Amino acid sequence: MNLRQTKPPLDDSLRQLIGQPVAAIDTPALVVDLDAMQRNLARMADFARKHGIRWRAHAKMHKSSAIARLQVQAGAVGVCVQKTAEAEAMVAGGVHDVYITNEVIAPQKLARVAQLASRLAVDGGRLGIAVDSREGIVRLAQAMNDARQALGGGTVIDVYVEIDVGQGRCGVPPGRAATELVHEIRRHPALRFAGLQAYHGKAQHVRTPQARRELIAQAAQDAAFTRKLIEADGVPVPLVTGAGTGSMVCETASGVYGELQAGSFLFMDADYAQNERDPAQPNFEHALFVKTQVISAGLRHAVCDAGHKSHAIDSGLPTVHDPDGEHGLAYDNGGDEHGILRPLPGRQRLPEIGRTLWLVPGHCDPTVNLHDHLVGVKGGLVQGTVDRIIRVDARGALT
Amino acid sequence: MNLRQTKPPLDDSLRQLIGQPVAAIDTPALVVDLDAMQRNLARMADFARKHGIRWRAHAKMHKSSAIARLQVQAGAVGVCVQKTAEAEAMVAGGVHDVYITNEVIAPQKLARVAQLASRLAVDGGRLGIAVDSREGIVRLAQAMNDARQALGGGTVIDVYVEIDVGQGRCGVPPGRAATELVHEIRRHPALRFAGLQAYHGKAQHVRTPQARRELIAQAAQDAAFTRKLIEADGVPVPLVTGAGTGSMVCETASGVYGELQAGSFLFMDADYAQNERDPAQPNFEHALFVKTQVISAGLRHAVCDAGHKSHAIDSGLPTVHDPDGEHGLAYDNGGDEHGILRPLPGRQRLPEIGRTLWLVPGHCDPTVNLHDHLVGVKGGLVQGTVDRIIRVDARGALT
Repeated sequence: MNLRQTKPPLDDSLRQLIGQPVAAIDTPALVVDLDAMQRNLARMADFARKHGIRWRAHAKMHKSSAIARLQVQAGAVGVCVQKTAEAEAMVAGGVHDVYITNEVIAPQKLARVAQLASRLAVDGGRLGIAVDSREGIVRLAQAMNDARQALGGGTVIDVYVEIDVGQGRCGVPPGRAATELVHEIRRHPALRFAGLQAYHGKAQHVRTPQARRELIAQAAQDAAFTRKLIEADGVPVPLVTGAGTGSMVCETASGVYGELQAGSFLFMDADYAQNERDPAQPNFEHALFVKTQVISAGLRHAVCDAGHKSHAIDSGLPTVHDPDGEHGLAYDNGGDEHGILRPLPGRQRLPEIGRTLWLVPGHCDPTVNLHDHLVGVKGGLVQGTVDRIIRVDARGALT
Repeated sequence: MNLRQTKPPLDDSLRQLIGQPVAAIDTPALVVDLDAMQRNLARMADFARKHGIRWRAHAKMHKSSAIARLQVQAGAVGVCVQKTAEAEAMVAGGVHDVYITNEVIAPQKLARVAQLASRLAVDGGRLGIAVDSREGIVRLAQAMNDARQALGGGTVIDVYVEIDVGQGRCGVPPGRAATELVHEIRRHPALRFAGLQAYHGKAQHVRTPQARRELIAQAAQDAAFTRKLIEADGVPVPLVTGAGTGSMVCETASGVYGELQAGSFLFMDADYAQNERDPAQPNFEHALFVKTQVISAGLRHAVCDAGHKSHAIDSGLPTVHDPDGEHGLAYDNGGDEHGILRPLPGRQRLPEIGRTLWLVPGHCDPTVNLHDHLVGVKGGLVQGTVDRIIRVDARGALT
C-alpha cells in the first residue's frame, strides 16, 4: 500500500506565477534562489571531479525528481533516498539509479522495492538498498524471488551492509557482525553485495572542523577495518558510501570512502551556517528561503505569517535573511502559523504591517517536506523573477 | 495566487485499504481511532449544550472538511481557521460558516477573502475574519468593495477585533485601542463588527488547573473591560470568542465568552496529556496515533520508521502508546525518518524487527499537516478495521 497519491498537473495560479516579479509570490512560500542553487551544484560537481570521488546526492532533502535530474546532469551518479515511496517518486520522475540508504522490513514495501528493481533493470538502471539484519536480508531475498517468479527475468538488487560508525541509529557494529551479513547476502542469487553503508549523521553538525575530522577519521577506520575483514574472507567490497554536507571533505580525504551522499549542500540551512567551515569545503551558500509577510505590529514586536507549518524547527528556528543588516530582527517562535519578530540588541525598529521578509530555515529537509512546491527564482530575491515551479513530488512519501 | 492544488481522487491503494484489518496499514501512517474521536466529539457537544455556550471547532488542527462537517452535525456553529487557503478548503468541502481567526494583509489574499465571503453569502453562509490594525481594516474594506463592484450584491463580512489577552502575539492591547478599531470598522458598509477575538494560547499548556484559571480570569477581565468601553460608545458587542482545549472550562465559567474555539479536544496529543485535568473538563482521550514499525534492532536500542517527517516535535517527542505497560519503551529523536526506542527504567526488553507500535504525537496540529490522509479505524488499534480514509484537504494550505 502506498499512501501517496498521483500528483495532478500544476494549477493555473502556479503556472501564472512564472515570469512574474518576486513581489508577486504570496506568503508564506518556500522559494529557491536558482542562481545560488546552480552555484552550489557546480561547486559540488567540481569538488567531486577534483577529488576523483563519486557523489550520489541525497534526495531526502529536496524530494524533487526535477532537482534530482539536474544533479544527475551535473555529474551525480544517481540519488539516495530514505523511503521506498521516495524511490518510487524518483523513478517515476526519470531517475534511473536510486539507492535506499535505509532498512526496509515490511513485506508490502519489499514487494514494491522488488518491483522497482525489476522496472529499473529493464531501463538499464539500478536500485540499491541498505540492510543491517539477517531478518532484513531474508525478507528482501524472498521479495526479490517472488518478483522474479511473477515478472520473469533475473533482476539483481544492490545490497549495502550498514555499519554504525558513530550515528547510533541503524547499522551493525563494525567488524565481524558485518561479515556475517555479507555471507548471508551472498547466499541469495537475487542479491548482490555492493559495499558498506557508513554514514555518521551526528558528525555533520559538530561545529569545529577539527572535531569533525576526528569523528570521521574514526568512522573511516571502522569502515576500513570491516572492509579488510570481509576481503580476508575472499569477498571484494566494491564501495564504502556515506558522508553528508558537514563532513564530506573528511570522508573524501580518508581514501576509504568512494561515494558521497551529501544532500543539504544544494540549499544549505541555518543550522549548517553555524558550522565553522573547513578550508577544504566548497563555500556553499543559502539557496532556500521562506518568504513571509508582517501581518501584525505592536510596540515591542511584530508578527509574520510563517510559523512551524511553513518551516521545520527541529534544528532551531529560522533566521531573518539580512545580508546588509537592513532589518536587524530576531525571529522567535510564534507557533504553527506565526513568527514573532523583535529588534536585535542595539536595534529598535520594527517592520511595518505588509512588509515582506525572507527567512533561512533551520533545517532544509523537513522544511521542504512541508511544501507541495518550491518557487524557483532567478535574478535574486529583490529584483528577480519567478523562473519555474518545482514540484516536491516525494513530499509526504513516508512509506 | 493560491499555491495549493486541486486534490485528485483517492488512489486505488487507499481505497483498497477500507475494510482491511489494522495490520494491513503500512507504516508510518497517521491513524485516527474513530470510536475515540466520536466519543470526544460527543463529550464536547454535551459540554457546550450543558453550559449553553456556542462552539466553533478550530479546523487548523484537523485540516479536513470531512471532519469539519462531522463537527457541524454534532452541533458546532461552524469552524475556525488560521489561513485563507484553509477557509477555501473548508468552503469547497461544504462548510458554510467559517471564521479566519487571524490577520490577513496581502491584497491578493484579501481579494480571495472577499470572493469567499460573496460565495458564502449566496448559500446563506457567512465568513468572519480577525483584525488588529487600522491598516488591515482599510485593506479589507477595499477588497470587499472591489468584490462588490465586480460581483454585485451587498456582501458583508463579520469582523472581529483581536485583543491580546496574554498570548503576546497578534491583537491590540485591551481597552481604548480596540474601541478605535471598532469605530474604523463601522465606517465601512461591507464590514460588520461581530465581536472580540480574545484567545490566550499560552494558557492552554499551563499544567495546573488553578494556574489556567488565573490566566483566563485575567483574560476574561480584559475582554469584559474592553467590551464595556465599546458599549459605552453605544456600540453593541455581539460576541467574545476564544478558548482552546486546555482552558475551555475557564472561558466557559467566566460568563464573558460566548463561543469556544477549541480544536485539539478531538484528537488530543501527548502535550495535552501532561496537563493536570480540571475536574470540570470533559475527559477527552487520545484518538490520533502514528503507526510505526521496528526496522533495526541493536543491543541497547531499536529503531522504528517514524521520525519528524511523520510527526511534529515542536511540543516534544511522541510517546509510545502502551496502555497495558506491555512495551515499556521510551521514544527518542532519531531524526527525520527514524525513532530510537530504548527500554524505560526497570525494563530490559527491546522490540524485535518487524514489530509494529503506536505513537502518540506530541502536538496534533502540525502532525496532521504532514499527512495527506488520515486512516480512520473502528474497533480499536488491535482488532479493528479500516473504516474510512479521511483526506486532509487543507494540508499545506499556508497562504
